[in-house]
Amino acid sequence: MEPEPAQRLQELDLVVGRVTAADAHRGARGPSVLLDLDLGPRGPAQAPLPVQLDDAQALVGSQVVCAIGADDVAVLAVRSHAGVVLVHPARAVEDGSPVA
Amino acid sequence: MEPEPAQRLQELDLVVGRVTAADAHRGARGPSVLLDLDLGPRGPAQAPLPVQLDDAQALVGSQVVCAIGADDVAVLAVRSHAGVVLVHPARAVEDGSPVA
Repeated sequence: MEPEPAQRLQELDLVVGRVTAADAHRGARGPSVLLDLDLGPRGPAQAPLPVQLDDAQALVGSQVVCAIGADDVAVLAVRSHAGVVLVHPARAVEDGSPVA
Repeated sequence: MEPEPAQRLQELDLVVGRVTAADAHRGARGPSVLLDLDLGPRGPAQAPLPVQLDDAQALVGSQVVCAIGADDVAVLAVRSHAGVVLVHPARAVEDGSPVA
């Protein structure tokens, strides 16, 4: 029996993180930056994002939603025809808050 | 070896949905509404949300992020001390756009 989405969301370990810096992702193919993230009690992390550096630097200070894995962290985004669109909490919440 | 978060995100099947209506969720324990959602090419869906009806009705027309399961749909939210905070795309995207 397939787990229901609420249970699978918990297994995925999604948390709110705050972008603290954005730097060029050297060695990456195509446009890519490396975001520095503050995950609150979960500590700092880094995640790649396939956007231009200017766009990424505009994200500094804002909150995003992150999927935490054993070895790396991914930032949730929609790849639309208008580019990469991140998802944010509707209001500021504590960094590291779980999303379920 | 544990799948990396990007792969697990794809397996979770997250899409952007638009709230089209919010109604009292009869029979639920505690505050709960049932949201009607437009998932674009993925069709219509319903998902419960543990908020007051007034708060849910204020969501009508806005986009949220949904986890699609075999039998039901969950809306992504942060349960903070300030209440339930949903996550939204930073800009309008097409309903049904995948989030990864």
